[in-house]
Amino acid sequence: MKQRNELQTELAGSEFGIKGECVISLMLTKLDIINTVLFMKLHRNVIQMKTGRLKSYESVCKKLEKKGLELSFPVALEKINDLIGVRAICAYVDDIYQVAEMIEKQKDIRIIKVKDYIRNPKKSGYQSLHLILEAAIAFQDGIQWIKIELQLRTAAMDYWANLDHQLRYKRGAKEAESIDGELRQCAEVIADLDQKMLKIRKKIDKI
Amino acid sequence: MKQRNELQTELAGSEFGIKGECVISLMLTKLDIINTVLFMKLHRNVIQMKTGRLKSYESVCKKLEKKGLELSFPVALEKINDLIGVRAICAYVDDIYQVAEMIEKQKDIRIIKVKDYIRNPKKSGYQSLHLILEAAIAFQDGIQWIKIELQLRTAAMDYWANLDHQLRYKRGAKEAESIDGELRQCAEVIADLDQKMLKIRKKIDKI
Amino acid sequence: MKQRNELQTELAGSEFGIKGECVISLMLTKLDIINTVLFMKLHRNVIQMKTGRLKSYESVCKKLEKKGLELSFPVALEKINDLIGVRAICAYVDDIYQVAEMIEKQKDIRIIKVKDYIRNPKKSGYQSLHLILEAAIAFQDGIQWIKIELQLRTAAMDYWANLDHQLRYKRGAKEAESIDGELRQCAEVIADLDQKMLKIRKKIDKI
Amino acid sequence: MKQRNELQTELAGSEFGIKGECVISLMLTKLDIINTVLFMKLHRNVIQMKTGRLKSYESVCKKLEKKGLELSFPVALEKINDLIGVRAICAYVDDIYQVAEMIEKQKDIRIIKVKDYIRNPKKSGYQSLHLILEAAIAFQDGIQWIKIELQLRTAAMDYWANLDHQLRYKRGAKEAESIDGELRQCAEVIADLDQKMLKIRKKIDKI
Repeated sequence: MKQRNELQTELAGSEFGIKGECVISLMLTKLDIINTVLFMKLHRNVIQMKTGRLKSYESVCKKLEKKGLELSFPVALEKINDLIGVRAICAYVDDIYQVAEMIEKQKDIRIIKVKDYIRNPKKSGYQSLHLILEAAIAFQDGIQWIKIELQLRTAAMDYWANLDHQLRYKRGAKEAESIDGELRQCAEVIADLDQKMLKIRKKIDKI
Repeated sequence: MKQRNELQTELAGSEFGIKGECVISLMLTKLDIINTVLFMKLHRNVIQMKTGRLKSYESVCKKLEKKGLELSFPVALEKINDLIGVRAICAYVDDIYQVAEMIEKQKDIRIIKVKDYIRNPKKSGYQSLHLILEAAIAFQDGIQWIKIELQLRTAAMDYWANLDHQLRYKRGAKEAESIDGELRQCAEVIADLDQKMLKIRKKIDKI
Repeated sequence: MKQRNELQTELAGSEFGIKGECVISLMLTKLDIINTVLFMKLHRNVIQMKTGRLKSYESVCKKLEKKGLELSFPVALEKINDLIGVRAICAYVDDIYQVAEMIEKQKDIRIIKVKDYIRNPKKSGYQSLHLILEAAIAFQDGIQWIKIELQLRTAAMDYWANLDHQLRYKRGAKEAESIDGELRQCAEVIADLDQKMLKIRKKIDKI
Repeated sequence: MKQRNELQTELAGSEFGIKGECVISLMLTKLDIINTVLFMKLHRNVIQMKTGRLKSYESVCKKLEKKGLELSFPVALEKINDLIGVRAICAYVDDIYQVAEMIEKQKDIRIIKVKDYIRNPKKSGYQSLHLILEAAIAFQDGIQWIKIELQLRTAAMDYWANLDHQLRYKRGAKEAESIDGELRQCAEVIADLDQKMLKIRKKIDKI
């Protein structure tokens, strides 16, 4: 019980939260600039939408419990990559990798880890490219590198992920099992659709 | 030639353009509020993304020429509904109709016409719900009702429409024909996917 | 104690807070449009900055206590005009009244009361024009008129008010008294400066 | 004539303009973060407002002509510091120097020159702190350092500067001369007011 409170205080507490909001706004601006830079080359918007959020106390607890970890702030900070998270919806599958390449070029961002759930989807059907990053923020006492997870997906992958997310909180219920199967089927339709759309776009590019 | 110039001047001219930007910002705020109001009821975001734009001079000319109409500003104002346009991407197909219902309730918006390309898709495969509206803006000399087109779609419909839009400018080319067929097939996959996703969401809602 | 909790819950509670955010965003958009409309006429920005906020639980309690009122939500809702507040900084004193006139013309806003602390400054030296308004928001069950206070001031008045606000929380301390006198003097310098600047602008307008 | 056209094309041209918008959005985000970082220490907003803009073709020409320079893009790029400009309005005079210190700490910004028109106002009465900076933007072919001018002022200095700016375009007229004198007097009142307000704030800080 004591640890839960410490975790809750630290997550909502001014310092972590405020620094988190800073990194999120920096990342959203970077994505804007990356979109602009790629627009100059491709003459179309590569990033269609982007959002950022701090993970809620409830979600942090669920994730720690699922992993069998202690509910403490230092553990959360070390083991949960998306305490601070940003998501960008890209127009086509190949755009995702172009954005990732541009992220790599930033002077004040370093890539810690890449999880490619597009080439290797999760069992559930989940697809996205996750980049675990550290971004440099200047504070009064110097530069600090803050961890943030960037999720890159197409609109179709995002559609699926949102629906899967709504189901997540109801799993365990008997009816949920059959839905899991239907969702897996939809994930296949979507992966197939993304490939078809990409193929058509490439044909159009060549005309 | 004279008319083209008059059209260009009026479209880019300060008054129409400035008034257009005003209506767009009002509509985007309305959509934000509608999303918030529906969130209170449904506990999820019904509107995922929204954008607004003034139709460019080039697009206006193409549309007038396609319709065999004179290239003049009064004709454009009367015959082209989306000179001022706003688009909202909704989470599920049924959300589209809920947003439309909320638009109907606004004190300072009146619905002129509804074009339901979801129930009756265009031959090309295009799907969306179009509401032709008039919105009230207070100017120094009183209230003015300004025409605006609101397009409502799911992310999957938007995915398709963006790809179709990229092709539009290349139509006429020989290769474009075979792509049209592939796009029509994709439109069917997407209509089917939207229905499947909606069905799954309704099952989840019931658990 | 019970009432404090009821007050806190209602203020932070989803419904009042969410509706408040809706009215704030509507008012900020209206001010944007008003600025644009006046720009067409005057060729300069009349509104320089604008902000909105929900009054915090702590501030509501202080205000109710100062007025000798019960700490309950219905009392707060009736007696405190700026539970929901928007502030606009105008370029010159006469711009304030032009913005107020444009507010009057809005179809979905009605003015409940006007408090002109520019013509009649508070004893402390405080100057601003306060409009107590009701704005129409469409909810699922129909239109609701929500109370909001709009404060209009010049940058110089705002400068003073921010400094006075910082002192407010320290009043009662012995040193605060002499500062009150210095602030009153500054308020006079500012009122004088605002008039001088307005006079110069009118001379420039005439050239 | 040829050069004018080249200058106009390059200024409005996609590359310089687009890169300029990128640097502006980066600087505005940096200022947001700096405000947040200083808020954690001082518990008040140090930056009250911020804006960015690309210098218009007309203004560039006037400035080049005034300096007796050739109207060409390379000359403009080298000799005009505020082709890309950002302005931040700070709460008090000492805040201006705190923001400047934080700018110095940024990993991806370097300070080229500092012009302190607060300690040494221009003859006209103009006061502001100007930082000529270079900011790093990652493009596809690597990092590019782009020049930008950051102007830091109090609200009172900004009030004066806006009025002076409105007069600038009418200078040369006979009536303008007497107004110049009145503006210089106002500049002194403002410098005095800024010092008084700062003194009061420091007294309040100590209570």
